[in-house]
Amino acid sequence: MDPIAPGIRAGSDTSHLAILGYDPFTTYTGRGPFEAAGIGMDVRKGDIAFRCNFATVDEDMVVLDRRAGRIEEGTHELAAAVHGMQIEDVTCYFKESVAHRGALVLRGPGLGAGVTDTDPHETTVKVHEAEATAPNDEASTKTARIVNEFTRRSYELLKEHPVNKKRRADGKPPANIILPRGAGLAPHLESFTEKYSLKPAAVVETGLIAGIAAYLGMDIVHVPEATGGPDSDVTAIGRAVIKALDDYNFVLCNVKGCDVAGHDGDPDAKVQLIERLDKMVGMLVDAADEYTYIILTADHSTPIAVRDHSGDPVPIAFWGPGIRIDSTQAFDERSVVGGGLLRIRGVDIMNILTNLMTVQPKYGA
Amino acid sequence: MDPIAPGIRAGSDTSHLAILGYDPFTTYTGRGPFEAAGIGMDVRKGDIAFRCNFATVDEDMVVLDRRAGRIEEGTHELAAAVHGMQIEDVTCYFKESVAHRGALVLRGPGLGAGVTDTDPHETTVKVHEAEATAPNDEASTKTARIVNEFTRRSYELLKEHPVNKKRRADGKPPANIILPRGAGLAPHLESFTEKYSLKPAAVVETGLIAGIAAYLGMDIVHVPEATGGPDSDVTAIGRAVIKALDDYNFVLCNVKGCDVAGHDGDPDAKVQLIERLDKMVGMLVDAADEYTYIILTADHSTPIAVRDHSGDPVPIAFWGPGIRIDSTQAFDERSVVGGGLLRIRGVDIMNILTNLMTVQPKYGA
Repeated sequence: MDPIAPGIRAGSDTSHLAILGYDPFTTYTGRGPFEAAGIGMDVRKGDIAFRCNFATVDEDMVVLDRRAGRIEEGTHELAAAVHGMQIEDVTCYFKESVAHRGALVLRGPGLGAGVTDTDPHETTVKVHEAEATAPNDEASTKTARIVNEFTRRSYELLKEHPVNKKRRADGKPPANIILPRGAGLAPHLESFTEKYSLKPAAVVETGLIAGIAAYLGMDIVHVPEATGGPDSDVTAIGRAVIKALDDYNFVLCNVKGCDVAGHDGDPDAKVQLIERLDKMVGMLVDAADEYTYIILTADHSTPIAVRDHSGDPVPIAFWGPGIRIDSTQAFDERSVVGGGLLRIRGVDIMNILTNLMTVQPKYGA
Repeated sequence: MDPIAPGIRAGSDTSHLAILGYDPFTTYTGRGPFEAAGIGMDVRKGDIAFRCNFATVDEDMVVLDRRAGRIEEGTHELAAAVHGMQIEDVTCYFKESVAHRGALVLRGPGLGAGVTDTDPHETTVKVHEAEATAPNDEASTKTARIVNEFTRRSYELLKEHPVNKKRRADGKPPANIILPRGAGLAPHLESFTEKYSLKPAAVVETGLIAGIAAYLGMDIVHVPEATGGPDSDVTAIGRAVIKALDDYNFVLCNVKGCDVAGHDGDPDAKVQLIERLDKMVGMLVDAADEYTYIILTADHSTPIAVRDHSGDPVPIAFWGPGIRIDSTQAFDERSVVGGGLLRIRGVDIMNILTNLMTVQPKYGA
């Protein structure tokens, strides 16, 4: 299966959109809206969303630490100080995420997403002025003006905030500014339930994928034992999937650790997690009833040799009643080449599944 | 071969469009225009076409029988009574089909296809008022007004028609109203001859597929021995194909019986027809000259277990001179997985064929 198309290096977000049946080429404008949705923010069509860092600047707005000492505590209070800010006719919604991370959502008329970042992406340089990336783009010029003002005011509001006074007293860098980056226009996406008449839940380990799922109207199931790394408790994740099937008739599950091991170039961690995943899939098969389908695949390849996502195709298997069988016996990149699915794409998966489930309307007569 | 795309449950109409090289996603708006073309009506781009039933209503317009006692005789005379009706600046063309069936074509300026049916699809309720399905759709609002008036006038014209007087005298329900349903906007489709410089005929068993073929400008060859069911005389169909090749250089042939056996859940009928089709293909191969290509495939799968069209891929074989051969020896769903075509789509077929026939212009220099 090619998550997007042969050779395309998919991100987890674009791939998940495709795998869930939403063409990323027409729906994806950046990860901002999905990051914001992933931390529970209300993101609506036409909003402009940014990923943000709490950072440390000096009084000349020179960046000293892009992560404010990887701040762990007090971000909820800092977020509350800037959340709801009104600039011109635009409302700025801000929410903290894990550690120094957060998300900004701008809502108001006539905003565009073609803007550069105020985050300079390096230290010892001044905070940047956001600009529209294309000339005569009035909507993005307005967004740039708003985001520059938001950045400036965040400094005014945070620099003497009690959380930062305490941080300075403790010898820690203050989280005295918010630096937005990666503007994305929130797309209109038909909800998963509207599109497929299924009731979906998501058991996933990362905020970005939770954001995709939440954006599509899926309920998010939290698994306290899930770490998002190669050490994650995949048995607990499997149990959560099985339990979710009591209340939902579609469960998206993403285990992140193999990707992490790939990025880290750690083959042992990858192999060990795959061995544990193998057992988890056995759990799911054992728990399946005669109506259950299991689709096993990856959102992209992360080869040890590349230490990043590659554009290679990934193995995929459909398991369940009435599936046309083939002679393939093993599930790995080389063995599946002879399989009956031949070469499909991510966007085909939901069509194949809803056909098998006999919930897909006939196209034509 | 995926008739439309992997997993998509194709209808016979959408699949035939695709197989003949017309993308259904951009050309298909409903079966109405093809049903009308299939009974020999002149359907033009922009026309609005409906499938219709002769039905029986009482004087309060309550439907007593949606099929007017499955009327067999006199429908040509009844059709003549309403055919050519002028409502505002719209002309209403009507023609009877088999039994209680017929088709209505509206031709005039500014018509839309987004209308509900006057056919209530059940008895003991009043004939419905057609309405535009979207607010502010002036074109469809006009169509709704026309179709409501057509329905009302059909009652006025038919209720005392001699055919119905005789039916009442014979104790049969009168065919005293025409109920249109399934509005479709007739698309502009380049004719098959314009598109491929081929002279095409169609040897097909159903009105809907004949309608697709006629709409594309194919000549329709009637085979009196063809029944459209598993008992059809496929030898006669094969002879008609071979004879048509004297006058045409492309012949579309569809044998319907396996689909019927699939819908009926009758594996024995399906197997027996496949065995007879096997012999028919042998006839075609024996009759072929050194320039002949035969493409053998299905417009969709109709598995016995599903008893309806499924979104599974279907086997396909190209036979003729100069085709790159592979090692596949059998023509069935599992064996062809190892074939050299891998996984193609319906819309690819005509490009592959016209390439083999060396009648396809080069794309580029």
